[in-house]
Amino acid sequence: MADNASVSKRDRSSVFHSWSAQGSLDPLPLAGGEGTRVWDHDGKEYLDFSSMLVNVNIGHQHPAVVEAIQKQAAQLATVAPAHASEIRAEAAEAILRHTPEKFEKVFFTNGGADANENAIRMARQVTGRDKVISRYRSYHGNTGAAIVATGDWRRVPNEYATGHVHVFGPYLYRSEFWAETQEQECERALHHLRRVVEVEGPQSVAAILLESIPGTAGILVPPPGYLAGVRKIADEFGIVLILDEVMAGFARAGEWFAFQGQDVVPDLITFAKGVNSGYVPLGGVIVSSEIAHAFDERVFPGGLTYSGHPLAAASAVASIEAFEREGIVENAKRIGQDVLGPGLAKLAEKHDVIGEVRGTGVFWALELVEDRATKKPLAASGIGALKKKLIADGLLPFTADNRLHVVPPAVVTDEEATRGLELIDSALGSL
Amino acid sequence: MADNASVSKRDRSSVFHSWSAQGSLDPLPLAGGEGTRVWDHDGKEYLDFSSMLVNVNIGHQHPAVVEAIQKQAAQLATVAPAHASEIRAEAAEAILRHTPEKFEKVFFTNGGADANENAIRMARQVTGRDKVISRYRSYHGNTGAAIVATGDWRRVPNEYATGHVHVFGPYLYRSEFWAETQEQECERALHHLRRVVEVEGPQSVAAILLESIPGTAGILVPPPGYLAGVRKIADEFGIVLILDEVMAGFARAGEWFAFQGQDVVPDLITFAKGVNSGYVPLGGVIVSSEIAHAFDERVFPGGLTYSGHPLAAASAVASIEAFEREGIVENAKRIGQDVLGPGLAKLAEKHDVIGEVRGTGVFWALELVEDRATKKPLAASGIGALKKKLIADGLLPFTADNRLHVVPPAVVTDEEATRGLELIDSALGSL
Repeated sequence: MADNASVSKRDRSSVFHSWSAQGSLDPLPLAGGEGTRVWDHDGKEYLDFSSMLVNVNIGHQHPAVVEAIQKQAAQLATVAPAHASEIRAEAAEAILRHTPEKFEKVFFTNGGADANENAIRMARQVTGRDKVISRYRSYHGNTGAAIVATGDWRRVPNEYATGHVHVFGPYLYRSEFWAETQEQECERALHHLRRVVEVEGPQSVAAILLESIPGTAGILVPPPGYLAGVRKIADEFGIVLILDEVMAGFARAGEWFAFQGQDVVPDLITFAKGVNSGYVPLGGVIVSSEIAHAFDERVFPGGLTYSGHPLAAASAVASIEAFEREGIVENAKRIGQDVLGPGLAKLAEKHDVIGEVRGTGVFWALELVEDRATKKPLAASGIGALKKKLIADGLLPFTADNRLHVVPPAVVTDEEATRGLELIDSALGSL
Repeated sequence: MADNASVSKRDRSSVFHSWSAQGSLDPLPLAGGEGTRVWDHDGKEYLDFSSMLVNVNIGHQHPAVVEAIQKQAAQLATVAPAHASEIRAEAAEAILRHTPEKFEKVFFTNGGADANENAIRMARQVTGRDKVISRYRSYHGNTGAAIVATGDWRRVPNEYATGHVHVFGPYLYRSEFWAETQEQECERALHHLRRVVEVEGPQSVAAILLESIPGTAGILVPPPGYLAGVRKIADEFGIVLILDEVMAGFARAGEWFAFQGQDVVPDLITFAKGVNSGYVPLGGVIVSSEIAHAFDERVFPGGLTYSGHPLAAASAVASIEAFEREGIVENAKRIGQDVLGPGLAKLAEKHDVIGEVRGTGVFWALELVEDRATKKPLAASGIGALKKKLIADGLLPFTADNRLHVVPPAVVTDEEATRGLELIDSALGSL
């Protein structure tokens, strides 16, 4: 049987890893999982507070989703996008059950990056304009246009796409607008966005692309009114509003789509991750009637071999039905309100290293700082030590920059959430 | 039970399709398949001479691949790329068994587009240069950089990436170089490429990106010596040579990789489709030792959530093992030499509408013309009528521009290949 050492060795000799220097990697080998738990090849168990890459919203190895994949694999594993496929239509219908009425069709992709690529493409085609405004502190994917729409460091070595403009978004804790309240931050962020639209030339702006809640960039829940204000600016200038729900959607934020808690309806919604918890690679664009019908006579110039893949579709249908049947969106919302929110607030009272707690549902960030007054980010060595301690204690963490993101599966129980908080408490104490 | 009409209706009301105007679609619904056969919901059977999107190289529903997916789904369906995964390492090892020695690691993606995106990224990072030279008449994927590397019409509405330069490649039948022999076409195409490198400035060229055999663009098998000549130019100027094997690889051209028939070794190989016949979305970059180790100390700035997905990896391992066990690469080569090549040549003797027959393995194109002297492409209405007749007679065709591509699964039997040729013969006769 394989053990951690042998799997790790094979990995290091043949697999090239993302976003890393390859020489210093020591990846933890995973052998199996169930719900909020995973285990390695040496039999050690972990509480998965990362949901892998914040995608396993339904938890590991949900039996209904596994069975749906197995059944579809036995029937027909692959169908070209030009054909019709019953399970693909079912998946589109299941997704559209949970969107506002203005949405009519789904364009399926392999993941979030190509979802954003195709949403940008639709916006450019229907407006005849080229610029896309997105925010600093954002992540939209690793392909040509998606990575340049991205607002974090990952954009910088990859700037080979044209027509991208970035704005600052609301983030009161580290305000770019000298704001002192959420109201002020919201108002000034909207003013800033409007000014950029005006000076870029509204007639050149195809789309505003925003994560409903910026995720890897820090779980930056927008202040009330911000997205509604963005919607107003988009309407005023005929700009397509794309909300990226790749990480925030499908129960992560305690709603089917995070924008549903925020008094706004976009024109295009991009999704991936939580739609089927990544059991099979899947993403897509949910398209408003208006934009869908703009391509009735004209050719939509985008596509890919695995668009509407049957296994991906089957896993999405099973996952959405399980969400409905088991109240998984409601569980995420309740856990956020009753357990994670109050629990993390308590940790902040106890540990000075916590500069701010932000979040909703099963989507929380602890902003860790050297000093609460200066807000100086906790050094990488501190984050490294925290991560190491959590893994040693049996919790898989998700860290980004100076933050610990608390992002368990949406099926996490009260007991598991409480246990996770205890482990985080202890690890913070050891800093 | 679903019938064609009901599935088609559901598809049309909720699914947005690739590369098409949505108003006029009438997609054929597929219900199941086995080997080279597929069937619809009304019980009609078709010989699949499209391999869907030229990806089902192992045929439909290969039992070993289906079982591997089912087994892995039961064990662990999703693992984040930062962890190690036994099946992912196995998949990398299985792929590397069939590449030249200089290759050491595999970076996994979701499909061919993001494979090319990441190969371009690697080339730009290691050279510190930005330009990518690719050819007109090519297709490299639908995302930001991949679509601009593309040389066909699909690029034109999508030109939002920088640093792309296109050259003409060898295509004697419609020579851009006033050539009269393959030798002349080869020599002049290389001269043209060298001139473009020189005038663009060799110190600005990161990569030359070519399909080993351009696929959708016309199955343009390069003349002997062309790719070796490209390799020489790349070496002379320190340019990374990326060969795109997304469509041509994994038995399609009668080799594991199409370049293996062409006396050349690239620096990066991109793959998708045939690696697992699209049973699960998968693509990737096979990386030379030299380029892999260039990222030992520096961070590789690319990645994606489903990189090295366990189900995709399991299907690739099972598929490659079946290729090895069942001699599927050898079958493809033999069918090309013994059945499809001679059979299509015979059709060309009989039907004036065939201007040229090109191909190898299970990768053939009939260039259809109104007039053999002028080589005027057959009108779209002619291609439409041909397609309709073939589908009515029970053969799923793959057409592109004025061409019929003859691209059955690599497991096609002599009898099936012969039957397909008969149906094509009859359909051409009805034109």
